[in-house]
Amino acid sequence: MLSNELPIGFIDSGVGGLTVVKEAMRQLPNEHILYLGDTARCPYGPRPAQQVVEFTWQMTQFLIDQGIKMLVIACNTATAVALDEIKAKVDIPVIGVIQPGSRSALKASHTGEIAVIGTEGTVKSATYEKELLEKSPDVHVRSLACPKFVPVVESNQFTSPVAKKIVAETLAPLMYNKPDTLILGCTHYPLLRPIIQNVMGSDVTLIDSGAETVNDLSTLLDYFNLNNYDRKVSKTCKFYTTGSPKMFRDIAGDWLDLKTLEVEHIHLGGK
Amino acid sequence: MLSNELPIGFIDSGVGGLTVVKEAMRQLPNEHILYLGDTARCPYGPRPAQQVVEFTWQMTQFLIDQGIKMLVIACNTATAVALDEIKAKVDIPVIGVIQPGSRSALKASHTGEIAVIGTEGTVKSATYEKELLEKSPDVHVRSLACPKFVPVVESNQFTSPVAKKIVAETLAPLMYNKPDTLILGCTHYPLLRPIIQNVMGSDVTLIDSGAETVNDLSTLLDYFNLNNYDRKVSKTCKFYTTGSPKMFRDIAGDWLDLKTLEVEHIHLGGK
Repeated sequence: MLSNELPIGFIDSGVGGLTVVKEAMRQLPNEHILYLGDTARCPYGPRPAQQVVEFTWQMTQFLIDQGIKMLVIACNTATAVALDEIKAKVDIPVIGVIQPGSRSALKASHTGEIAVIGTEGTVKSATYEKELLEKSPDVHVRSLACPKFVPVVESNQFTSPVAKKIVAETLAPLMYNKPDTLILGCTHYPLLRPIIQNVMGSDVTLIDSGAETVNDLSTLLDYFNLNNYDRKVSKTCKFYTTGSPKMFRDIAGDWLDLKTLEVEHIHLGGK
Repeated sequence: MLSNELPIGFIDSGVGGLTVVKEAMRQLPNEHILYLGDTARCPYGPRPAQQVVEFTWQMTQFLIDQGIKMLVIACNTATAVALDEIKAKVDIPVIGVIQPGSRSALKASHTGEIAVIGTEGTVKSATYEKELLEKSPDVHVRSLACPKFVPVVESNQFTSPVAKKIVAETLAPLMYNKPDTLILGCTHYPLLRPIIQNVMGSDVTLIDSGAETVNDLSTLLDYFNLNNYDRKVSKTCKFYTTGSPKMFRDIAGDWLDLKTLEVEHIHLGGK
């Protein structure tokens, strides 16, 4: 098989990376997709950086063993701590979600007041601040960890009244001196987007770091001549989860608007 | 000097690539720029492909000798015939303007009726059609060579009544069964943009392939860790032309809104 015909790999701590896959399916309809969500060990946010690096390596190795032409680390927590190392060591192109999201926020912001919401791990890494301030030293960046958001999404309660309450309470610190641009610095958060937009108000631009990543993915597929032009084989999406295939299928089927979905349970990390 | 601090190189047959530089200055304010316009041998459009390849190599070599960290072939005619060869043979990242413009047109078009205007060389190469149809076999692409546009721009007459007449007459064949998206497939054409938009009507989306290229440039600067973060040295833009520095300075100063402009005459191609 030509490498162009191999799937693109996406990894995430759970279902969050599906927000990136959704955009990839829209913008890159010819590409095959392999997805791995480490649901059993989700959330990654509260874990020590070294453990996140280890888990991310395990996911990367699993998808590379299946055969992929490019890897998207569709998880902000993993991108923050593992992207540079993985990119340096594997021989396919690897991208994360933080640089595209930062670039897009800088384009969108008029006031220079940018806020980032993410997991504890992402916020602690300060990767967004670093990216934003290196490119544009004059912006003012605030970061807020939202540790309750990922569990709400992973338990498929992201449209519930509980979700609304949690989002409103968590984002309250941002309501004074509101940013004009808010980076959804976790790929799970776009599933909460309507609620987040409602809480923040329509005057705040939300940046979906995952969706922005697909623009970079397109650019790099072109740059490395890796586009799939073969239309003889019908397009495939395959999903792996370390957790419950049923729960994964419920969320993914709804979110991606797919009636049938090939989801396989796998085990990562030895015994 | 760290490679991050080197300038980005831009090459074009003349002043057209300045439309790309203008967008680069806006989106990438920290980057140093070296520009080479081969004004003395412009237009490239009517020249045989092999000669365009040869001239493009000469420009590439000149800028590489000055020291650049990345090269933008900011000329559609040169991109169409020389990008693959140059990209394969030089050891810095090289991008052209056709893939970004094609991608953007596919995103913008709702009806799938896409038209491309460019030089004879670009149209003859059918590179846009190939890019567009490989990615989206269902679109309908028409191409129209506009050989009179580049000379109008290079002679600094791009707002004149003559320009209006030439644009209206040249684009007449596109007025039946109008496309919804028109690719400005030559980096000179954005200087004629108001006239082109007026002729085509406000319902036609114009794609500035050069401006789109700067999005790719940002992505690749991130991907290859080539951003310039050094703010100690004030930003520099230097321009080389094989033609008249005065004419170049007049056009470039207006277009880039720069009061002073370092323009140096050089000779390319041996004796």
